[in-house]
Amino acid sequence: MRYDLRINLERLVERLETLGQIGAIEGGGVNRLALTDADRDGRDLVVKWMQALNLAVSVDRIGNVVATRRGRNSGTGILIGSHIDTVRTGGRYDGNLGVLAGLEVIRQLDERSIETREPVSVAFFTNEEGARFAPDMMGSMVHQGHLDLDAMLAVVGIDGVELASALEAIGYQGPTPCPAPPPTMYLELHIEQGPVLEEAGITIGAVSGVQGISWTELRFHGQSNHAGTTPMRLRRDAGLAAGRVVAFVRTLAERMGGTQVGTVGSINFEPNLVNVIAREATLTVDLRNTSERDLQAAEREMMAHAQAVADKEGLELHHRSLARFEPVAFDPALVRAVSEHAEALGHSVMTLPSGAGHDAQAFAPNCPAAMIFVPSAGGISHNVTEHTDRIDIEAGANVLLNLTVNLAGPC
Amino acid sequence: MRYDLRINLERLVERLETLGQIGAIEGGGVNRLALTDADRDGRDLVVKWMQALNLAVSVDRIGNVVATRRGRNSGTGILIGSHIDTVRTGGRYDGNLGVLAGLEVIRQLDERSIETREPVSVAFFTNEEGARFAPDMMGSMVHQGHLDLDAMLAVVGIDGVELASALEAIGYQGPTPCPAPPPTMYLELHIEQGPVLEEAGITIGAVSGVQGISWTELRFHGQSNHAGTTPMRLRRDAGLAAGRVVAFVRTLAERMGGTQVGTVGSINFEPNLVNVIAREATLTVDLRNTSERDLQAAEREMMAHAQAVADKEGLELHHRSLARFEPVAFDPALVRAVSEHAEALGHSVMTLPSGAGHDAQAFAPNCPAAMIFVPSAGGISHNVTEHTDRIDIEAGANVLLNLTVNLAGPC
Repeated sequence: MRYDLRINLERLVERLETLGQIGAIEGGGVNRLALTDADRDGRDLVVKWMQALNLAVSVDRIGNVVATRRGRNSGTGILIGSHIDTVRTGGRYDGNLGVLAGLEVIRQLDERSIETREPVSVAFFTNEEGARFAPDMMGSMVHQGHLDLDAMLAVVGIDGVELASALEAIGYQGPTPCPAPPPTMYLELHIEQGPVLEEAGITIGAVSGVQGISWTELRFHGQSNHAGTTPMRLRRDAGLAAGRVVAFVRTLAERMGGTQVGTVGSINFEPNLVNVIAREATLTVDLRNTSERDLQAAEREMMAHAQAVADKEGLELHHRSLARFEPVAFDPALVRAVSEHAEALGHSVMTLPSGAGHDAQAFAPNCPAAMIFVPSAGGISHNVTEHTDRIDIEAGANVLLNLTVNLAGPC
Repeated sequence: MRYDLRINLERLVERLETLGQIGAIEGGGVNRLALTDADRDGRDLVVKWMQALNLAVSVDRIGNVVATRRGRNSGTGILIGSHIDTVRTGGRYDGNLGVLAGLEVIRQLDERSIETREPVSVAFFTNEEGARFAPDMMGSMVHQGHLDLDAMLAVVGIDGVELASALEAIGYQGPTPCPAPPPTMYLELHIEQGPVLEEAGITIGAVSGVQGISWTELRFHGQSNHAGTTPMRLRRDAGLAAGRVVAFVRTLAERMGGTQVGTVGSINFEPNLVNVIAREATLTVDLRNTSERDLQAAEREMMAHAQAVADKEGLELHHRSLARFEPVAFDPALVRAVSEHAEALGHSVMTLPSGAGHDAQAFAPNCPAAMIFVPSAGGISHNVTEHTDRIDIEAGANVLLNLTVNLAGPC
């Protein structure tokens, strides 16, 4: 095992800045929604950098781009992936860091004339954010056979454009078929997009998996009435029920502890007037846990509470699932390898789950996959103020570099 | 005392229906927003009916219309008042019942050739609802000197029209000065607009007063963050605080009991997305009590709870008063007289406070004032389905008739 390799931080940071100029928006942010002209310009730049490294660049039917450096052996090899599309008011690091750090890894191998047994590839996947076309992680999910190519090509975006047309318009509907065979292993370096590493004063996160996600919309239906003339005991107040669920979701998450989180981010009353008891209240409940069993328990408790509140107040309760993903566990041996490499390089490290979805999820069922997290300043992401310190970028990229070489097998 | 007089129900109901045709909307409702063409048409009809009774009709500077039947004595006499403007989707009874029952009382006196010592007047006041021009109860409040005439004439409505222009456009800016001297006594028959009488199976409400009203807007300011990646203990969730206040307002009202009611009818989260912790949450708290001391206690407890919730979650809390009215107590002797007349006429009766504001509030500080409530089906008002049974209309109008005669002093 070797731990002596180091990336060139200046070069990596300069490329992050150069790519960040494409679709740049006020405040230092980036707007490169998937398959827009700005996304095309970003893709063109990264492909140019791939070609400059003499990599074999392929573009598949949904626009995923994979650039491969040959190994001594044949086979699919090590795949380093992430994405370069952003949300409408995104930052420079989300996704981009993983792709550009991957190219820096390749460049280090070239500059040091390191041959590997396994091929090493760097990929960016189409529409990870899902901010223009739903669902998110679309390209990687199609790549690994979890979503149907033709169905995704027919998806219509928030601007009314069909995905296939958008792909064609920017020239990224490639010939490579998908789904593709899984790589030997999948690695992804990514910013945490949460505050845990920063708060703990830790540089490297060895990501154990991705939390399961449950989004439920609850709609309480009661009776609109005069806030002054209706005695408390005669009310059927849909707003009260919504408020009680908001409070309960926090209580539930705190009581369950562990990785359980719970959020009511959206609420709407009808008619929403100061002196009228709400006839209808709609709210969303976002529950996440790394354990599918615990997540199901949280869902059951939340629904039972909502139903009890509705029954007590004489309300109808309607509910529907808006999204449901089971937790994803990354390969334990590979997660340990991330930790070991971080430690060997002298960095503090902790194992933590990801609260957000990532392309690595698409690979985890099909091959050993793992992720390396670096801190997000203030835990802020999907925001123009998204930031990761240079020293953390360097640390994360060095873990990726040495780990890749050791996994690919230096000759 | 005489209790033998009876109104003509058919005639009263027919007039309610005829007036309800003006500004009629689908579902049996009425839209006669103050000082619109529909309001003018309604006013013209009622003034025609007043003139048909040979009453002395005066129109004051803010459009209040008072029609007076002479008494043997001079003086201001008994005033029976209410309003004929409606909310945008109002019913046929709110306000209109009190005015038209008043005219039926006058007609009974005429038909029975009953002379009274005190003059008896019937009035409808401008803009009781406040649905086009704020505040509500405007005409009666100006009439009794609680609001400034010139300031009210300058009020701009929700449609951008100045009140003085609207008054002039419909021809109801009259010459009679206001404020006017208070009447000897003020009486108002009104639908309850709440469910208490119906639920108790009682026909007549002797209204003890009007609840004090406190409207507060609370705005919690926290930090927007990712619902998946932000651990519970690092959150500054404005939405959570709003939910806890919603739940607390119910707990508070139930614990205080008595006439205390509390409602959160309006709530708004920013950015209001399923997977984003709310940065800001704004809600309104409507608190009402017949006791000013208890209402102040409720306000203090609610604010202390909101502040404690904000402190615990690390939020800023801003608050502002949207409205504040002290409780109004009607004249106890006159309230008892309402009860006695109801009983003498064979009706069930209970004393109860009004949860809504009424023109009678403007008179209570200046002269003995009281109100007679009749049941609202389902407690529903400000709605096209507003309804009061014929038998209850008859009962209420008969109480008004006999009480008026006894107070005015039959000769």
